[in-house]
Amino acid sequence: MSGKLYGIGVGPGDPELLTLKALRLINSAPVLAYPAPEEGESLARSIAAPYIDDGERVELPLRLPFLVDPAPAQEAYDAAAENIAKHLEAGRDVAVLCEGDPFFYGSFLHLFARLSGRFETEVVPGISSPYAAAAAAGVPLSTRDETLIVLPATLPAEILAERIGMADTAVIIKVGRHVGKLKRMLVGLSLLNQAKLIVGASTDHQQVIPMAQAPDPAPYFSLVLVTRREAPKR
Amino acid sequence: MSGKLYGIGVGPGDPELLTLKALRLINSAPVLAYPAPEEGESLARSIAAPYIDDGERVELPLRLPFLVDPAPAQEAYDAAAENIAKHLEAGRDVAVLCEGDPFFYGSFLHLFARLSGRFETEVVPGISSPYAAAAAAGVPLSTRDETLIVLPATLPAEILAERIGMADTAVIIKVGRHVGKLKRMLVGLSLLNQAKLIVGASTDHQQVIPMAQAPDPAPYFSLVLVTRREAPKR
Repeated sequence: MSGKLYGIGVGPGDPELLTLKALRLINSAPVLAYPAPEEGESLARSIAAPYIDDGERVELPLRLPFLVDPAPAQEAYDAAAENIAKHLEAGRDVAVLCEGDPFFYGSFLHLFARLSGRFETEVVPGISSPYAAAAAAGVPLSTRDETLIVLPATLPAEILAERIGMADTAVIIKVGRHVGKLKRMLVGLSLLNQAKLIVGASTDHQQVIPMAQAPDPAPYFSLVLVTRREAPKR
Repeated sequence: MSGKLYGIGVGPGDPELLTLKALRLINSAPVLAYPAPEEGESLARSIAAPYIDDGERVELPLRLPFLVDPAPAQEAYDAAAENIAKHLEAGRDVAVLCEGDPFFYGSFLHLFARLSGRFETEVVPGISSPYAAAAAAGVPLSTRDETLIVLPATLPAEILAERIGMADTAVIIKVGRHVGKLKRMLVGLSLLNQAKLIVGASTDHQQVIPMAQAPDPAPYFSLVLVTRREAPKR
């Protein structure tokens, strides 16, 4: 009988934001897989590390480089999926640790596309960075009949403006080198002063910066939260 | 010294989807508040119940009826906020249990608006229902440069169609009696067959139903997940 594949969200950075279910499955899976850079520590593993017990298990770092070129990226995902498949075929459950939530802009999606048709698969949701960022900034994501949109800064400025124009609150991810473009776009929508850059939400280096003062490029784990909603009267 | 107000997300229904942080704060707060109906059990409390220890604490059910009429609703929120404020003024921390995430379409927002200016406040994110629904349906919320939108079924059909037309994936909440309108709108977008109704995500009565077969009205805790993205090749 084949093993079961788990995609496990470990949340946005604070190890205490792991769920009880994530914790149980991490410590019961015979194989623990996680995305890892060529050198150095896996972020997903480091988030879960304080709670990983001393039990015996196989650890399987998945080398999934940040590749802009699609073909080598596909090859890296193929290879990672096959490494996981070998354990599943041998009857061993595999828990894949995922930063944030497994189904929200992460590399797990590429493994899911390759493996969920062949093996029993369960996704365990994790706290997603927009929620941690909203909590950090004290800005609710949505209330009443509001619309919330999440979109990447990599889209062209006019598309960003059009889509954000339709929402009450927007979360812009993949900010990186797009800070200048985003500032100009937000000025055009008269929303610059209602936008904040949140860096490392829930971590010990968390920062909330008015978007007008955001550094360019933005640090890697950052997102922009912008709302048309007025601040609550105090 | 005043107490601290915590808004604590208890997740979408499965008690195991509580975070470790929620668990710690629930069991350390001297006052535990939660929305509750006029009669019967509080859903938010029932989600956390398996993990609430036998320690001594004050329990403070907040009577926040589902009121369509704004004025009585405001009065109910005012009264709930004042009940909480009395404990905070007396130096007692108050943990407010919130279904899902405190900053995502919940009654905590109304308490936050009334109290966060007067008292130290911390929001502890919880697993939000769209993430649990996506996990249940096996449909990722977003990947690569995709746009995700969350909006309520209470909006007019033409606005829903326009906004959903701009996104790769949409989550429609507050489905209730709007099933017929949603089906017609999705037919107009040629998306009916790519939409699913997810009922009670993460609970033991979880169901994933093709939208074409969704009952009208939909059960209370249900949402629609619709994506333009093709299913992964298997």
